[in-house]
Amino acid sequence: ARLFVSSNMAKSKFEYVRNFETDDTCLKNCYIVVRLDGRNFHRFTEQHKFTKPNDNRALGLMSRSAHSVMEELEDIVIAYGQSDEFSFVFKRTSTWFKRRASKLMTHVASQFSSSYVFYWKEFFGDQPLLYPPSFDGRVVLYPTNRNLKDYLSWRQADCHVNNLYNTVFWTLVQKGGLTTAQAEDRLKGTLAADKNEILFSEFEINYNNESALHRKGTTLIWEKRDETVTKRMKRPNEEEKEVSVTRSRKRVQAYHCDIIGEQFWEEHTDILEDDGC
Amino acid sequence: ARLFVSSNMAKSKFEYVRNFETDDTCLKNCYIVVRLDGRNFHRFTEQHKFTKPNDNRALGLMSRSAHSVMEELEDIVIAYGQSDEFSFVFKRTSTWFKRRASKLMTHVASQFSSSYVFYWKEFFGDQPLLYPPSFDGRVVLYPTNRNLKDYLSWRQADCHVNNLYNTVFWTLVQKGGLTTAQAEDRLKGTLAADKNEILFSEFEINYNNESALHRKGTTLIWEKRDETVTKRMKRPNEEEKEVSVTRSRKRVQAYHCDIIGEQFWEEHTDILEDDGC
Amino acid sequence: ARLFVSSNMAKSKFEYVRNFETDDTCLKNCYIVVRLDGRNFHRFTEQHKFTKPNDNRALGLMSRSAHSVMEELEDIVIAYGQSDEFSFVFKRTSTWFKRRASKLMTHVASQFSSSYVFYWKEFFGDQPLLYPPSFDGRVVLYPTNRNLKDYLSWRQADCHVNNLYNTVFWTLVQKGGLTTAQAEDRLKGTLAADKNEILFSEFEINYNNESALHRKGTTLIWEKRDETVTKRMKRPNEEEKEVSVTRSRKRVQAYHCDIIGEQFWEEHTDILEDDGC
Amino acid sequence: ARLFVSSNMAKSKFEYVRNFETDDTCLKNCYIVVRLDGRNFHRFTEQHKFTKPNDNRALGLMSRSAHSVMEELEDIVIAYGQSDEFSFVFKRTSTWFKRRASKLMTHVASQFSSSYVFYWKEFFGDQPLLYPPSFDGRVVLYPTNRNLKDYLSWRQADCHVNNLYNTVFWTLVQKGGLTTAQAEDRLKGTLAADKNEILFSEFEINYNNESALHRKGTTLIWEKRDETVTKRMKRPNEEEKEVSVTRSRKRVQAYHCDIIGEQFWEEHTDILEDDGC
Repeated sequence: ARLFVSSNMAKSKFEYVRNFETDDTCLKNCYIVVRLDGRNFHRFTEQHKFTKPNDNRALGLMSRSAHSVMEELEDIVIAYGQSDEFSFVFKRTSTWFKRRASKLMTHVASQFSSSYVFYWKEFFGDQPLLYPPSFDGRVVLYPTNRNLKDYLSWRQADCHVNNLYNTVFWTLVQKGGLTTAQAEDRLKGTLAADKNEILFSEFEINYNNESALHRKGTTLIWEKRDETVTKRMKRPNEEEKEVSVTRSRKRVQAYHCDIIGEQFWEEHTDILEDDGC
Repeated sequence: ARLFVSSNMAKSKFEYVRNFETDDTCLKNCYIVVRLDGRNFHRFTEQHKFTKPNDNRALGLMSRSAHSVMEELEDIVIAYGQSDEFSFVFKRTSTWFKRRASKLMTHVASQFSSSYVFYWKEFFGDQPLLYPPSFDGRVVLYPTNRNLKDYLSWRQADCHVNNLYNTVFWTLVQKGGLTTAQAEDRLKGTLAADKNEILFSEFEINYNNESALHRKGTTLIWEKRDETVTKRMKRPNEEEKEVSVTRSRKRVQAYHCDIIGEQFWEEHTDILEDDGC
Repeated sequence: ARLFVSSNMAKSKFEYVRNFETDDTCLKNCYIVVRLDGRNFHRFTEQHKFTKPNDNRALGLMSRSAHSVMEELEDIVIAYGQSDEFSFVFKRTSTWFKRRASKLMTHVASQFSSSYVFYWKEFFGDQPLLYPPSFDGRVVLYPTNRNLKDYLSWRQADCHVNNLYNTVFWTLVQKGGLTTAQAEDRLKGTLAADKNEILFSEFEINYNNESALHRKGTTLIWEKRDETVTKRMKRPNEEEKEVSVTRSRKRVQAYHCDIIGEQFWEEHTDILEDDGC
Repeated sequence: ARLFVSSNMAKSKFEYVRNFETDDTCLKNCYIVVRLDGRNFHRFTEQHKFTKPNDNRALGLMSRSAHSVMEELEDIVIAYGQSDEFSFVFKRTSTWFKRRASKLMTHVASQFSSSYVFYWKEFFGDQPLLYPPSFDGRVVLYPTNRNLKDYLSWRQADCHVNNLYNTVFWTLVQKGGLTTAQAEDRLKGTLAADKNEILFSEFEINYNNESALHRKGTTLIWEKRDETVTKRMKRPNEEEKEVSVTRSRKRVQAYHCDIIGEQFWEEHTDILEDDGC
């Protein structure tokens, strides 16, 4: 037993290693953005036979996982996702995890990843998940509302540019009979206008009528809804009766709309806090 | 279509937000340790009815997930886990992810978490996973071999202190008929020697004979093994024949031994690089 | 000579140590504040017989040194000093030194310190400087105008609280005949109102009439002035004549006014950039 | 007086800005190197007519200022300087300023700069200092003795490469009658061996016999010396008499020797702490 007397001492002898951990607190009064990106998702989409250019099951699963992150982590006011990436924005005054960057990003990455596997079956049914996928993440801080909106606009503009390209590319391949190499060649150097023109004149596709989910990505925000439930209640000296109880509940709501223009922000003024704070 | 001409421009207009990302490169020539800890695992173990004081299925699943991390991320030279935590050590000269702390820790957290859900069934069979669990992580740097070994010793001493306590606690409850409150009370202020004495004199349990997995945790390292396979080969102007081919392959190997003393390190001299480098 | 052939090689062999330097770029679009504080100035003021509670020579020297910093480092839009401290604010969009925190703060500390010694004689005349004084510094980032103004307000409120205390303390000692211990005792627990009352009723001093330099500290900003100089010019085929040339020149201007209220900022709207940028 | 009642409150209202300061503690058990570099010293040397290729007054002043830094800041175990730069190495276990990088580097920069002006006259006599010079600084961490020695070797190799070049360059100009443009041209593409050859065959200069101060730079370390002083003492019932008292005193000692090879380190084993610690 002498061995064990020393074990507590041993532990305290080693405990100095704790002090090698460094502080990574995020600057106060800045929005904290955690962005996740799929790792080796090119290979992952091949092996799981995702439809081209967009696989709605996969997009639904990404969105479901992001939803799960928002419900688990306090203080995420908006999330935006497209393709194999998702960004989560913590409110600028958040004190979640004492604003420690490492805790925030690993928790988001972990919750998202376990959810992705957990909810796979809901979206892919019997098609098996072949191996556990992974995502990497990063933290970026934005000091002002303008900077944050520009960040989200950057991601949505990226969604647009990629989706337009992919839509034309796969249309040329799937309907136009081109090889992927020929399609790539055809699109080299084309501008957005040219791509729209190809879609319209050769395939009678108006890009603006394509799915908003694909063109605009997915924006998740919290919304208050009044929920009315009927409860049976009984007060003293009264007969039991049915009562309608209405409460306000916050729920995650998905949008596939433009978030670059001001309209979205004017309709949802409670997402951002004022710079003047 | 005019809208789309401007979309590329729009994207470039927003791209300045990229420069808000800050560099978090880990100091060169230091060991990079990523430690994961289960979030709200007290609740998780309750809801999934983990056996007390240790659930071998859960420990196996942790180990399996850590194994998956080691296979996906280059340059992890040793991993150590106990209870709901696992530490991963990147070699000091690693340039994986350009040593960016955020990428390293989120990738580890993500791969571990998706693996935990993915392999759940292998360890828990038909018992369903009720919701996606999560882990948070951190990065700590250690400049010398002494510091790194002391870090691992600290975690193993922690394993020992906790497991001894839990073993006595649950023996008092499960075999001694005490309530959890009574057991807690009984153990207040006891030293390791006292706890060993309780186990031995009251329950004829010699703590040293308890499972090494529980007392020492799990250490994962890479080991080279010679693998011999028989292949059928045919050379020009020869008949086809069977040939034995032996190749050296690296595999992850689990240990449940003491890593505080020098013996383990003397037997595995290839894990650590020399400080003099 | 063989030795020297290898010297270039030797240098390149060691050059890897460069990569141990880590990036400390300040977050974009935030005000960068560098604050300097005198080291061991209690001893310094004793040894150089500074007058109590304020030494105008010393305050003038601090201000002169800050002035020198502003002229040497681009992008400082405002500086505020009191007692043995001075804060320098770089504009939020500054790219000076690529926003590297270490460069910014060491340059400020260095320029201020060498100026302090250089200009000593201008303020202290024949009284010798006994040894080289030093200042330490730090960098703090502020994301919004509100935060920055609150920082400066914090320093000016500190100036006020200290100066009121020191004024009463040294009045009690110098005019009231108390020992320093008695004066300290007398002031224990007093509020600002009490201190004003002591000054007024016992010494007929209205604190508001005390020197603004002492009560408000020193604020340095850039101001544009039109300067008119008379030059003698001669054009071809004309006689030489005197011409008045007016140019706008930026100069550092000192204020000893309130910067907590909005008035100062309304009168100097060009100091801060808009949060909406 | 109502104004002043609120001033304490005002201060506490603003005090939240304190929390915007972030922690910049240096990783434990690493050597902390602060390097200073002269700012715009090309212009400074021109305006103060420094002799070429080396000005011993300027080198002496650099060394004197570094000496002053070592005496003011605890825990600097070695400093190395050449040209207009000086590096200061804090021992790996130092807790000076709680290892806060900003405090360490600003204090070094400040003390060095004020000393440079303060001691100017000692080295430049009646030649006036025209304006306050400045230095910028940085902090770099080195985890092992090998890394630290390689850092110092890098700086000394840099000294060698530059001094050899400058020696030949100015010899060609001053003794060879070349213009600076011609000298530059002549040296383009030459190796160290070529430069030695020019010095030797054209000017009968053996570079190895040049001043060690110029070839090797200046290394400052602490050395213990026994100092014997004679004191007059008087014990009770004895006559007053002279007594020799010897005490060990630490003093900063300058060397101009090679620090790339192992010899220097073998002769001064107390400078570095062991990696195994």
